[in-house]
Amino acid sequence: MATATAHPNHQLISSEDVEGVNVYDMSGKKIGAVDHLMIDKISGRVSYAVMSFGGFIGLGHSHYPLPWGALKYNTKLNGFETAVTEAQLKDAPAFSDDAWTDRNWETKTHTHYNVRPYW
Amino acid sequence: MATATAHPNHQLISSEDVEGVNVYDMSGKKIGAVDHLMIDKISGRVSYAVMSFGGFIGLGHSHYPLPWGALKYNTKLNGFETAVTEAQLKDAPAFSDDAWTDRNWETKTHTHYNVRPYW
Repeated sequence: MATATAHPNHQLISSEDVEGVNVYDMSGKKIGAVDHLMIDKISGRVSYAVMSFGGFIGLGHSHYPLPWGALKYNTKLNGFETAVTEAQLKDAPAFSDDAWTDRNWETKTHTHYNVRPYW
Repeated sequence: MATATAHPNHQLISSEDVEGVNVYDMSGKKIGAVDHLMIDKISGRVSYAVMSFGGFIGLGHSHYPLPWGALKYNTKLNGFETAVTEAQLKDAPAFSDDAWTDRNWETKTHTHYNVRPYW
């Protein structure tokens, strides 16, 4: 390409700035925000977004890891959309810090949210 | 899979923890560290690692964006390896904050480092 062209769908964000990016449900209502991302160092792919769901009622924890494939960036909203429901969050496989190295937990979690494994 | 199996090559890192991951040259010498990553929000792929090169002599800037493909994670070193040279860094296309939305700069930068574009 000879001239500078900013691709309209191409949006880079610094790893320092992911905290606080809003997450919306499919009706456009804000339900929470990204706390941080989990990144596969080998492939350079984001594998999970750890969400904070301040808006949902009755969740037992304040942070939930969602498979990256459960989120879709919406350039108009300047945030992520997800079809994940409160019921799905409540029933999600139990999470601990060991989960990131536990392929069994990863498999169950992707199955739970109907997301194709990233690996 | 029925049992929990930690994949040896599967290493997840929080976006909060990427700062300070070491970068080594091909001889295993530490040449710098990751300052932050640039992430494509649409695809969830890391596109650049912005490096700090404290060890190199004579560089005009303290931070340099490298295409992700110029880095390879080495689990033994617990850091990234790169074949990028000081001469390549000195000759790299001029960087500004607008570069992240400038496909022309991105194309030139990937060509400069002999890395296939991520888009």
